[in-house]
Amino acid sequence: MSTTSDYSTRTVFFVSDGTAITAETMGRALLAQFEQHDFNRVTLPFIDNEYKAGDVAEVIARAWADDGVRPIVFSSLVDPELLKIISVSRPLVLDLFASFSKSLEQELQIESTHATGRFHGLVDQKIYDHRMEAVNFALAHDDGASLRHYEQASVILVGVSRTGKTPTSLYLAMQFGLKVANYPLTDDDLESAKLPGSLRAHRASLFGLTISAEQLASIRQERLPNSRYASVSQCRHEVEEAECLFRRNAVPYIDTTAISIEEISSKVIQTMGLARRLF
Amino acid sequence: MSTTSDYSTRTVFFVSDGTAITAETMGRALLAQFEQHDFNRVTLPFIDNEYKAGDVAEVIARAWADDGVRPIVFSSLVDPELLKIISVSRPLVLDLFASFSKSLEQELQIESTHATGRFHGLVDQKIYDHRMEAVNFALAHDDGASLRHYEQASVILVGVSRTGKTPTSLYLAMQFGLKVANYPLTDDDLESAKLPGSLRAHRASLFGLTISAEQLASIRQERLPNSRYASVSQCRHEVEEAECLFRRNAVPYIDTTAISIEEISSKVIQTMGLARRLF
Repeated sequence: MSTTSDYSTRTVFFVSDGTAITAETMGRALLAQFEQHDFNRVTLPFIDNEYKAGDVAEVIARAWADDGVRPIVFSSLVDPELLKIISVSRPLVLDLFASFSKSLEQELQIESTHATGRFHGLVDQKIYDHRMEAVNFALAHDDGASLRHYEQASVILVGVSRTGKTPTSLYLAMQFGLKVANYPLTDDDLESAKLPGSLRAHRASLFGLTISAEQLASIRQERLPNSRYASVSQCRHEVEEAECLFRRNAVPYIDTTAISIEEISSKVIQTMGLARRLF
Repeated sequence: MSTTSDYSTRTVFFVSDGTAITAETMGRALLAQFEQHDFNRVTLPFIDNEYKAGDVAEVIARAWADDGVRPIVFSSLVDPELLKIISVSRPLVLDLFASFSKSLEQELQIESTHATGRFHGLVDQKIYDHRMEAVNFALAHDDGASLRHYEQASVILVGVSRTGKTPTSLYLAMQFGLKVANYPLTDDDLESAKLPGSLRAHRASLFGLTISAEQLASIRQERLPNSRYASVSQCRHEVEEAECLFRRNAVPYIDTTAISIEEISSKVIQTMGLARRLF
């Protein structure tokens, strides 16, 4: 039952009485600090009674036997009884709930409701509607599909084809409930060297996305191999013209070359001074 | 500098050297246990040097002065020096990193890399591409738009109009990199009482979404007020027929009436036995 320091694969469990998304998010962030290590990740959501907890206990014990190293358990279980059941074989348990919850209880001088399934559980209908409205807005205004209702957009993402506009729009809608349109700069737009007419009235909502020419060419290559569209020279030309357009019109922009959708989205919110609505 | 137990609004900060999405996710989950309390939530991402940390310290001190109650800080800062700077006025700091990181270091017998910005930071290009491919697949196969390549789908969501198919498809793509198509059951499909031809070959990938007739009517009412489409009787008819179709064809399904997109998505993954790929 001793821990080992070898680099054999270790099983990491994310156990939750709800979706386990919080446990995964925290676990992933913490494990990223130990990237030299290999982990086998297993998510076990909706563990909300003693029977399911008993099954989890067995799965954890079996992983220890199979791996030969002690499993790690990220738990967002709210009920301490369930946590006790799953921990019977004594894995390393990181209880994401208990320590913080106790500090908060002391500080707020009220007791936690200890409601299970609250880590992403039932939702308020108004919040749900708001989020759906944002997702539908992003879909309706994707890739310049509709230029109407731009005045309702919190942000209009602008950039040449394949700079990450669509996934960023959808992420901002889903995660933060923001209404985001996106507009692809065409060759015509770039040649005229002016902001497209449909964008001029909304200059304050514009945010540009750019990317390295090489990366853009590689993304486009997947889509239309060996086309002019995917050539590095064409990509370089488009990217330079687009950046020039952004600068001339004081449109804030970022380079998306090596950053995640989450990071692009957070930068957009920060730069545009938008409220981060949390679900 | 004493804490108070009154119910005045307290400011809660989510401070991070990266996007702050991890800090928000954890903070939101913990605060959900104290829902009787009002919180004013402020997210401060990309705090990655001493100057920015100094600014944060001032913002926190000011919130304390303004609210008259001690602020709460959820921190995912990796650098303890930055955490020290922001904590100078002594708010309640919940350090999401330190305690777990130390346990992991001891268990793994290796040191944390203490890399900042790792809580959702730079991404591996392959992972990025995989995720984008999934998002593009969801968009191309939204609402029965394309019936081709259904064999590539990990799941095909099936349901009548407005049961949550589109946001669930997009969430599964964005969060878990799963390729998900969705198919809307039409009146014709329901009347024939058989699985639509394009779905028959993919029965093992089908997952049904249903909803209460009242809720469906209320959602449709927003879209097409006072239409037959939005009437409770029409909605009840469609929902009953769809559920009947699911049962007759052994298509697993869930009721989305009162649950979040995250919860629907987690249930789909669990029921279909899919791997939860984590980004």
